[in-house]
Amino acid sequence: MRNIKATIEYDGTNYHGFQTQLNKKLPTIQGKLESCLMRALMEPIKITGAGRTDAGVHAEGQVINFKINNNIPLERLPMVINGQLPNDIAIKVLEEVRPDFHAQYDARGKYYIYRIYNNRIPSAFHSRFSYYIPYKLDMEKIREGSRLFVGTHNFKGFSASGTNVKNFVRTIHSLDIVSNENIWEFHIQGNGFLYKMVRVIIGTLVELGKGRRDEDSIKEALNNKDRTFAGKTAPPQGLCLKKVFYS
Amino acid sequence: MRNIKATIEYDGTNYHGFQTQLNKKLPTIQGKLESCLMRALMEPIKITGAGRTDAGVHAEGQVINFKINNNIPLERLPMVINGQLPNDIAIKVLEEVRPDFHAQYDARGKYYIYRIYNNRIPSAFHSRFSYYIPYKLDMEKIREGSRLFVGTHNFKGFSASGTNVKNFVRTIHSLDIVSNENIWEFHIQGNGFLYKMVRVIIGTLVELGKGRRDEDSIKEALNNKDRTFAGKTAPPQGLCLKKVFYS
Repeated sequence: MRNIKATIEYDGTNYHGFQTQLNKKLPTIQGKLESCLMRALMEPIKITGAGRTDAGVHAEGQVINFKINNNIPLERLPMVINGQLPNDIAIKVLEEVRPDFHAQYDARGKYYIYRIYNNRIPSAFHSRFSYYIPYKLDMEKIREGSRLFVGTHNFKGFSASGTNVKNFVRTIHSLDIVSNENIWEFHIQGNGFLYKMVRVIIGTLVELGKGRRDEDSIKEALNNKDRTFAGKTAPPQGLCLKKVFYS
Repeated sequence: MRNIKATIEYDGTNYHGFQTQLNKKLPTIQGKLESCLMRALMEPIKITGAGRTDAGVHAEGQVINFKINNNIPLERLPMVINGQLPNDIAIKVLEEVRPDFHAQYDARGKYYIYRIYNNRIPSAFHSRFSYYIPYKLDMEKIREGSRLFVGTHNFKGFSASGTNVKNFVRTIHSLDIVSNENIWEFHIQGNGFLYKMVRVIIGTLVELGKGRRDEDSIKEALNNKDRTFAGKTAPPQGLCLKKVFYS
C-alpha cells in the first residue's frame, strides 16, 4: 500500500461540505473525490481530510491522504485524477508519504482567509466567494478588535455546538486584515479551529464594525465562554481554507 | 416615460445567453432582468442590450436601456433593482438618458476580454471564467499572429452563421495580450464584432500556439472569407464583455 498526500482546491458552492453525510445522496467534496479516485485508480479509495469544511466553504489548500495499491508513477497521477474530477475540484500537488501520515492528526495548524465584499453596489463575480456587506463598516474598529483574538484563548463562546470536542483552548498566531479595493481579506492562522470558529469571529467583528457592539463585549464573550455573547455566524461563502501546516 | 441606461455585470454560467429565447423556459439574462425590474418597479419593462452575449459568456460592462413610468429618484434605483436580482447579475451604474438613446444602435464599439488558463494543473476557481489549456502554448507566436487581426478586415471567415448580417467588415482597434501567472488575457477592442468572432479568433490563435497552423493560414482565412479556414470556436466561459463605447 502506498500512502498519498494531496493538496487540493475546491469551489464549495455546489457541495454540502467536505465530509460525506449519513444521507449519502447529498454531494460532498469527499464523496466526489472518492468516486473519482475510484474511477481513476480502479480500486476503492477512502480519503482523510485535514479538516471538514462546511457547506459552501472553499479551499485553496485543503490536504487529504489516501492509500492506494496501484503502481502508477506518481508524476502521472495528477493528470489521471484531475481528468476524472469536475471543474470545481482540482488536485494541485501529490506526494507519496510515510505509511502513517494522517492528514487530520498530523496537522499542526491551519490558515484560513475570510473575504468580505464591502460596497454599496453588489458584484456578480464576488458573490460566490465573499460575504457581501452593502453598508459602511468601521474598519479601524474591526482592525483593533481583531487583536483581541490573537493568542491563546478558550474559544468555546466562539464555536458552534455539534462536535465532541472537550478542549476549547486554541491559539491564533495571527489575524491580519488586507484590503484591495472593496475586498477585505481576513488572514487567520492558528494551531486549530473549533467548529464554525472563524465564521463566528468574523460575524462578531462585523457587528463591531457596524457599531452594534464594542470591544468590551468581545472580551466578555471570550471570558464567558458562552456562544450567546458572540456575534452571528458569518456566511460560509466568504471562507476559504488556504493552507494546512505539518511539521 | 424616462429612459434609463444601466451598466451591468453578470456571471453568465447559469444562463442561456443574454437574449430571451423563443422557448421562454430557458433562463436568460434579459428574461431575469425584465422579471426583476418588473418586480422592483411594478410595471412591465422591456430592456435593450448593447450586445447579445452567448450562453456562458460573462459581462463586466454590458449596457442596457429601458423605459420606465415610475418616478422613483435615480439614486434609489440601483438598490431597489439589485435587491431583486440574483447574486450573479448586478446593476453597477444607472443614469437617465435622452429619450432616443438606444443601447444597441448607439454603441460605437466594444471591448472584450478573453481569458485562457494555461497550466499543467487545472484550477477549481478559474474554470468558471477561463478556457483551460493544459498543454504548452507558444505565446510568442500567438502574440505575433494576433497582430494580423488588428485593423479593418472582412471577418466573414471568423464568424458563425445564424445572423442576418450582410456587411462583414469590422475594425479591430487593438488586441493586447496580458499575462498574470498562468492567466493569459486577450484584450480586444473594435467598432463591432460579428457572431462568435472573438471566440473564433481566439480558437485560431490557440491552434497557432499549439503549432497546428502558421501565420499564412490565418492570412488565408482572412482573405478567403470562409469559416472552414479559421480555427475552432473557443469555449464561451473565457469570454467577457468588458465595456461598450458610446459617442
